[in-house]
Amino acid sequence: MMQLVLVRHGESEWNRKNLFTGWADVELSEKGVEEAIQGGKLLNEAQFDFDIVYTSYLKRAIHTMEYILNEMDRNWLPIVKDWHLNERHYGALQGLDKAETAAKYGEDQVLIWRRSFDVKPPVLENDDPRAPRNMDAYRDVSDKSILPLHESLKETIERAVPYFETVIKPQMVDGKRVLIVAHGNSLRALVKYFDHMSDDAIMGVNIPTGVPLVYEFNEDFTVANSYYLGDQDALKAKMEAVANQGKAK
Amino acid sequence: MMQLVLVRHGESEWNRKNLFTGWADVELSEKGVEEAIQGGKLLNEAQFDFDIVYTSYLKRAIHTMEYILNEMDRNWLPIVKDWHLNERHYGALQGLDKAETAAKYGEDQVLIWRRSFDVKPPVLENDDPRAPRNMDAYRDVSDKSILPLHESLKETIERAVPYFETVIKPQMVDGKRVLIVAHGNSLRALVKYFDHMSDDAIMGVNIPTGVPLVYEFNEDFTVANSYYLGDQDALKAKMEAVANQGKAK
Repeated sequence: MMQLVLVRHGESEWNRKNLFTGWADVELSEKGVEEAIQGGKLLNEAQFDFDIVYTSYLKRAIHTMEYILNEMDRNWLPIVKDWHLNERHYGALQGLDKAETAAKYGEDQVLIWRRSFDVKPPVLENDDPRAPRNMDAYRDVSDKSILPLHESLKETIERAVPYFETVIKPQMVDGKRVLIVAHGNSLRALVKYFDHMSDDAIMGVNIPTGVPLVYEFNEDFTVANSYYLGDQDALKAKMEAVANQGKAK
Repeated sequence: MMQLVLVRHGESEWNRKNLFTGWADVELSEKGVEEAIQGGKLLNEAQFDFDIVYTSYLKRAIHTMEYILNEMDRNWLPIVKDWHLNERHYGALQGLDKAETAAKYGEDQVLIWRRSFDVKPPVLENDDPRAPRNMDAYRDVSDKSILPLHESLKETIERAVPYFETVIKPQMVDGKRVLIVAHGNSLRALVKYFDHMSDDAIMGVNIPTGVPLVYEFNEDFTVANSYYLGDQDALKAKMEAVANQGKAK
């Protein structure tokens, strides 16, 4: 039996302000820090342990991971950071207020951009400071053309799943207990892949922030079981709150 | 020109209480957090940048590193944690109050244990919970006999310097800008090695906490220059404070 735990980062400052975030590197809010610590406590109480941890290049995920490891008294675990686990890139919407965007483009268009499977948000210009090719964090990516200027969920999946298959899965097959701390959409990519969900079905999945999602796999990598840790009622309320994001105020 | 920056972790809870710490995994004190943040600010203001960061298995160094990277907006940098950069192992003294130890064994004996080059503190039993072989963090070290039960400074050097030579130096030769966040004695090991200092001379070196120590190397790895960042008077006061640790109260 192979086990994998997924955790979505805690609330960020921009989640709180209802801005499109994507690859913008924003801090956890105070609530987000609390969620991260709580996630670590849940893992600790349930006596989970890991051999290696994967996270994105974005500090809201990295800090969530650090708070979790600290709660688990596992600060010394090896960490791999990779941009393939980053959030979906929201292109020219990044930094815009979701309610304002809804007022400008219409709530329907915003919902299409946020929830459709293969429609991309407006593209960034090559020289936009929000374009990853212009950001220090991605300076070591030799072929800058593989860095997105906007992404649909489909494209997020097309980079996150191959990364899982080529980098993370071999570690699991090798017996390593893996924790992945990432983002709403990069984790959706993995959940869709594990559970063989349809393009439509994955759009209805809202992974709550800071709540460990446990997957157990059979030897052939089919899913034997999956569940969230912690209080199931509180969980349901959290998932509904995430689903209501992006509606015009 | 190759550049390397060394940072000693900020004050820990046990430094504050004047306990022998060694490999005990204790938290930064509030002052230690401030020192770490200040170290990050100094590096940021002086426009330093890095490609890779090395630290120990101990959370006071790991957290210092995390605060520094956060101040530098470089949370995404790759991190390598390795126990060869851990503090000197203080054997059966770990967890004891330094002043009490001085009262019990005599201040001279404590000074010998802390400041002599090759005298080891009292050894831990194999089954002592403070022995690294019994700690989760070192479970992946296949040959447990290489993990210390007590160390002189000489032995700390004998594990830290080969680690630098075989793992870190090749990265520098390859053009990588390296930051090492570690401990009083593992950093003494490197300083002695870089500056070809005598066994006696290194005992007089007290690296201040949280202050970036910059080394510049020529192509043949001789030292071209070395200096501390920041206010030089404040630095002098800090170094004297460290030198006065361990005197009986």
